[in-house]
Parts: sequence; structure tokens; C-alpha cells
Amino acid sequence: MPFETKATIATFGGKLLKLSHESSSTKTPMDVNLYLPPVSKTKKVPVLIFLSGLTCTPQNCSEKGFFHAAASEAGIAVLYPDTSPRGADLPGETDSWDFGAGAGFYVNATQEPWSKHYQMESYVTRELPEAIFAEFGDRLDAARVSITGHSMGGHGALTLFLKNPGKYRSVSALAPISNPSRCPWGEKAFGGYLGKDQRDEWAKHDATELVKGWAGKEVPALIDVGTGDNFYKQGQLLPENLEKAVKEAGVKGVEVRYQEDYDHSYFFISTFAADHVKHAAKYLL
Amino acid sequence: MPFETKATIATFGGKLLKLSHESSSTKTPMDVNLYLPPVSKTKKVPVLIFLSGLTCTPQNCSEKGFFHAAASEAGIAVLYPDTSPRGADLPGETDSWDFGAGAGFYVNATQEPWSKHYQMESYVTRELPEAIFAEFGDRLDAARVSITGHSMGGHGALTLFLKNPGKYRSVSALAPISNPSRCPWGEKAFGGYLGKDQRDEWAKHDATELVKGWAGKEVPALIDVGTGDNFYKQGQLLPENLEKAVKEAGVKGVEVRYQEDYDHSYFFISTFAADHVKHAAKYLL
Repeated sequence: MPFETKATIATFGGKLLKLSHESSSTKTPMDVNLYLPPVSKTKKVPVLIFLSGLTCTPQNCSEKGFFHAAASEAGIAVLYPDTSPRGADLPGETDSWDFGAGAGFYVNATQEPWSKHYQMESYVTRELPEAIFAEFGDRLDAARVSITGHSMGGHGALTLFLKNPGKYRSVSALAPISNPSRCPWGEKAFGGYLGKDQRDEWAKHDATELVKGWAGKEVPALIDVGTGDNFYKQGQLLPENLEKAVKEAGVKGVEVRYQEDYDHSYFFISTFAADHVKHAAKYLL
Repeated sequence: MPFETKATIATFGGKLLKLSHESSSTKTPMDVNLYLPPVSKTKKVPVLIFLSGLTCTPQNCSEKGFFHAAASEAGIAVLYPDTSPRGADLPGETDSWDFGAGAGFYVNATQEPWSKHYQMESYVTRELPEAIFAEFGDRLDAARVSITGHSMGGHGALTLFLKNPGKYRSVSALAPISNPSRCPWGEKAFGGYLGKDQRDEWAKHDATELVKGWAGKEVPALIDVGTGDNFYKQGQLLPENLEKAVKEAGVKGVEVRYQEDYDHSYFFISTFAADHVKHAAKYLL
């Protein structure tokens, strides 16, 4: 489906496009933001997909993440999908901030009533990039895509990278939910979308489980976690479990950094945004 | 009055402090944010005061202005005062977004009922810096202060600089209300706070009028205005009037830049924040 352009905003020498389209995956309208860096109109630029965390829309990171400063300098576009379908009007959809609207967890739901609309894995990995490259193919290079994200979006970035070898050139994550099968957020979401007793299915959407079966030698991953992050302290993120699995599987290339005192907010994201753009740039440029 | 610290947030290697204190100028509690860059504890850093625009609190620019990246690098603290007293509970105080709460215009009101609380000029130029330097005197250098701001805050920065020779080392502004006596926002605010028929008083708070009487040869000022800014197009900002007055007065040092396509938002502010920090750094470091 073609995109409606709701706004075109000059920022950091490029343009932030606020777009909307009808999604066949979610059967709802979907908002998406696209940052186009200031480059020659004859040269195609690579794309970094940023997956947002619980409760977020495409606006939060566009306004407060400050990826555009570094993306402008590097010549990389940034694509911000939404975190769930909106307005599907399912029972209970907006009762919790960590399940339903704003909390799609980047999986294809198999359980009723969610399965009809909550097809975020298909949307983010296939439908959205295909539509974006069809519409902006003169500006964007479909062969050079990396993925990153924050919290639930860090989980999304890591799992979609590991499930789709070759689709993304690199991956990174800020405060990712690294072992969702073993934390309250993940148990609630996977139980609801994939089935309470379907732990084998859960494992297919869990970075710590997926890395154990990684066929390649390397995962080009940068991960930052703040030591002052209350969700980290509460055991929602569990990056140590991922680190242990990476080590035991003999996978190289995964760098996990613990950033002293940083919390879970956009003050943390914006501080390290440039590092994550530079990490992607190593593989995209 | 001493400050209560409501939050201490790690960002860009430094700390953002969310503070609150009882103001004797406004006779209300006042929120204020202070960004402390990452520097040696034995070395004092200079301070850049950022005055926000209509409707803003200290939070908006702290979250979306992106000053901290450049301030961290330069070793400059950033102080974010609020834009008005809050909770004074005056009749009509919250009826308009461009007058009353969130719209103090950095003047000392002389008209009832505003005069009791709306003493923002005294608060920003005297009480707040005195309190900040008393409390953080081991980290901040009271002898090195510059001022900047956006929209109504750009008006504040320019007028407070011009009214207080020697108090600030430099001034800058993003999309400032440059000739408030001649625009709808300014006429409404000055009429309400200073009196409808008091145009002589208005002139004492109007950068375009003040620069005509500037005793020095130079005003070290950087001003950015977006050509896509609807408020600029509507004649609320009038930077050309200021440019004309500067030229006629023979004042040197004022650089006005028109940034193509940029709007009035934080997407504009954040893009040029680094330039404004660097401008201040030339005079502060």
C-alpha cells in the first residue's frame, strides 16, 4: 500500500518523514517515521531500522533518541516502525502498558484474539521494508539494512537478526529484553501471543535461546545496558543470560557494555545513539 | 532557598539534576534543571542559561534540545529555568497558552493581579543564579555565564543580555521574538503584564528597541531562524526588524542566519544546539 506523508520536517540537514499506510499484516493503519539524511539525490543510502520499546510510537525516538545527528553525518537513513497495531479494538487491548497496544513484542501472535492483527514480525521483517523500498527505492538501498532497538525493541532487533541470517548486516540493542522466556514482561507477552504452555515456541523468539543455534561464527552485535536501570535490576533484561549463552555457543562479535549509572530512559538512549549508528556504519558503508 | 533534588540522571557522561526551590521572586515553588558536564571535580565550569519558549517547562529542552552532547564535550553546564510561576492560581492564569502560566516573557509584571508572582526578570537574572551558585559553587564558575533561548526564551535571552551589560559573556537565540512590541504575542503579554498604554515600558523589554541604545560597540550574538517556521511567517518573530536596528545602530557582532525549511520545533532547536553551545564556548572558555 502507498504511504501518506503526514509531515516532512527539516532536521540535522535531512528530512524526517511522518508516514502512514494500511498494513495487510496487521489489518490496521500503521504509522512509521523515516529519517532521510542529507545526501546527493543520485546516491542511495543504507537503512538502520530502530525498534522501540514498550508504550512507544514512532515519535518517541524520533524526538528524543538523537540518532539523526550521527545518521546525518554517516549518511544512513533511520526507519522507525510502530510497536503494535493501533485501534484494532480487541478486548483488553489497552488495559496493560506491557501487553496489547504499544507492546507487540515483534512476534506473529498465534492466539485468539491477537492473531488477526498482531503480526508484527511479518510487518517489520517483510511488509514494511518492501513497501518502503518500493516507495523510496530511488533514495534507499534495499541491500544494506541493519537493525537496532531499545528494551522490547532490543529484543526485537536481536531476535529478528538471529532468525533471519543475511537479512541485516549488523545488530545492536540498548537495554534489550535479552531472555524474554525468563522474565515477567516476556512471560506475559509470549503467554498471551504464543500460548501459555508453548515454551518451545517462546524459544524461537528469545535471543538467549536463538544464539545457541546460530549457524555462523559471528554476530556483529553491540549491546549497552545501564547499571542504574531499574528494569535491569528487576530482572526484566537479563543480559548476563545472553552473554553466557553467547560464550557457551562460541559465538564471536558480541560486545556487551555496562554503562555506569545510566537508566532505561531516552537520556540513556540518546547518549549512546551515536555509538550505535557508528556500529551499524561499519557494516553498512 | 535551598534546592530539593527530585532526580539525578546520567546523560552524555554528565548528570542532569531536576531541582525545585521556593522562590522569593515569584512566591511559588519553581522547578529548574541543571546539566553538569563530566569534568574534574576540582575544576569549575561555566554556565549557559537556556530560556524556553511558550508553554515549556524545564523538561522540554532537557529532553529534546540536544544541548548536552555539545555541552558535555565543551565542559559547560546548562541551566534551564521554568517559563513562569506555576500554581499561583490567579484568575485566567491558565486560560491562554500564550499568556499567564508557561508564558512569563521574562519580565517583572507591574499590573495586577500578575505583579505579585510574575517577577521572572528578577528570578532569572538575580535570584536563580545566586541560589545556584550558592549551592553548586564548588562546580560552577559564577564569573562565566552566557545566555540563550528559544522563541519567547530567545526574546528573554536577547533582552536580558542587552539590559545587563557585563552580566553575560555572550548571547544567542533560536527563532527569537525579536520585536515583541510589534507582534501579537508581545502585544498581548506586554499589555497584560506591563499595561496596555505603557509602550515606553514595553520598549525596555524589546530587543529591537534596546539595541538602539546599546552603549558598547559589539553584541556577541548568534541568531538562527527557520524559513519554514509558521510563527516567523505570521510575523511573530520579526528578526528583520532587529537586523535593521542593529545595522542602523552600528552594532557589530550580531550574526543572523536563516535556515532553509526549518520549523519552530525542537527538531530545529536540536539541529543547531551544538552551534549555540560552540558560540557560547568562544566566550566562556
